[in-house]
Amino acid sequence: MVLSSGSPTLRVVFIAFEGGDGAGKTTQIELLRARLVEDGQDVVVTREPGGTDLGASIRQVLLHGDAIAPRAEALLFAADRAHHVATVVRPALRRDAAVLQDRYIDSSVAYQGAGRELDPAEIKRLSLWATEDLLPDLTVLLDVTPQDGRSRRGAVHDRLESEQDDFHARVREHYLQLAAQDPGRYLVVDASLPREEIAAIVAERVDRL
Amino acid sequence: MVLSSGSPTLRVVFIAFEGGDGAGKTTQIELLRARLVEDGQDVVVTREPGGTDLGASIRQVLLHGDAIAPRAEALLFAADRAHHVATVVRPALRRDAAVLQDRYIDSSVAYQGAGRELDPAEIKRLSLWATEDLLPDLTVLLDVTPQDGRSRRGAVHDRLESEQDDFHARVREHYLQLAAQDPGRYLVVDASLPREEIAAIVAERVDRL
Repeated sequence: MVLSSGSPTLRVVFIAFEGGDGAGKTTQIELLRARLVEDGQDVVVTREPGGTDLGASIRQVLLHGDAIAPRAEALLFAADRAHHVATVVRPALRRDAAVLQDRYIDSSVAYQGAGRELDPAEIKRLSLWATEDLLPDLTVLLDVTPQDGRSRRGAVHDRLESEQDDFHARVREHYLQLAAQDPGRYLVVDASLPREEIAAIVAERVDRL
Repeated sequence: MVLSSGSPTLRVVFIAFEGGDGAGKTTQIELLRARLVEDGQDVVVTREPGGTDLGASIRQVLLHGDAIAPRAEALLFAADRAHHVATVVRPALRRDAAVLQDRYIDSSVAYQGAGRELDPAEIKRLSLWATEDLLPDLTVLLDVTPQDGRSRRGAVHDRLESEQDDFHARVREHYLQLAAQDPGRYLVVDASLPREEIAAIVAERVDRL
């Protein structure tokens, strides 16, 4: 899709930001949003889990509830995603807005697949069913080590954040594998770089979309 | 598994009760429970959705929330089921209890598959993944027409119950198809029969398990 707007011609895009907790996704999404809005683009910033009212309830159950059976956890994330894509993401893309999203399918694949040791391929199939096969145009992976992530998150940890370093190491490893398998759809950036430098790398790639 | 108990030798079983709302599942489960307990069997009565604390939260979202995207609804039922099977049903079966359950996989297949016009085969695959392929030894289908079901439910309807008759007609039709495909695992009983007569039919089949 091509939009004529104020300055350059913009293509409508769906961009997911991925990475361990503390990687700086929120900051980078805000920097990219500001830049796109300045260019006259309609931008929707959203997140999973919890990007809808239904999702907010699911997020509460997921992040602060008692022990949840691993497959139930994966299915709850997929339910949140199905509702979010159907009611927020697809309507935004249809009206030619760019969608910048904090976490998407790869979070489930990395956290529930690799982290929880369910089959990553099954987790991906689940999400593709949930979203009727909607993949992002670009996935920005902010790569953070478990140690850096922990020190950047600060003191308050939810149920997933407070998993041990080896869990986060498996998640990170799996994220990097996903990116390596499909370099055309991924941008991997070292999350320990200065935030302006990261923003410039992201902006350069988005301009090429 | 074979248990020696007071009177006859009992095999541990997992029995699901299915049927439209108003079919009398609760009544029949209670009658069978009383009979098995009298025979010295350890019995767990449970239900989906909502057979666990987590499930109770999911049930609230499912039955009384706002409009939910169809795939999200199917995934929420599957999440409830995954947690319920992992934390209630399998532990009960492991300690040699009989499990009598109000609704199971076929409810999802009939309601989300046929009722919502998602692909029933995909809905079944979802539930089999959720439960790691746990099927009941027997499924008792209490067959009720949409008209009878409506009049027997009384005045208070939740979100699913208040769907139109054609929705319930599709659900009923699909239940009957499922039973016809696997007669060895199903017992179909006319829900308009007197409750003692239904109970006797169910008891006779359970004795043969």
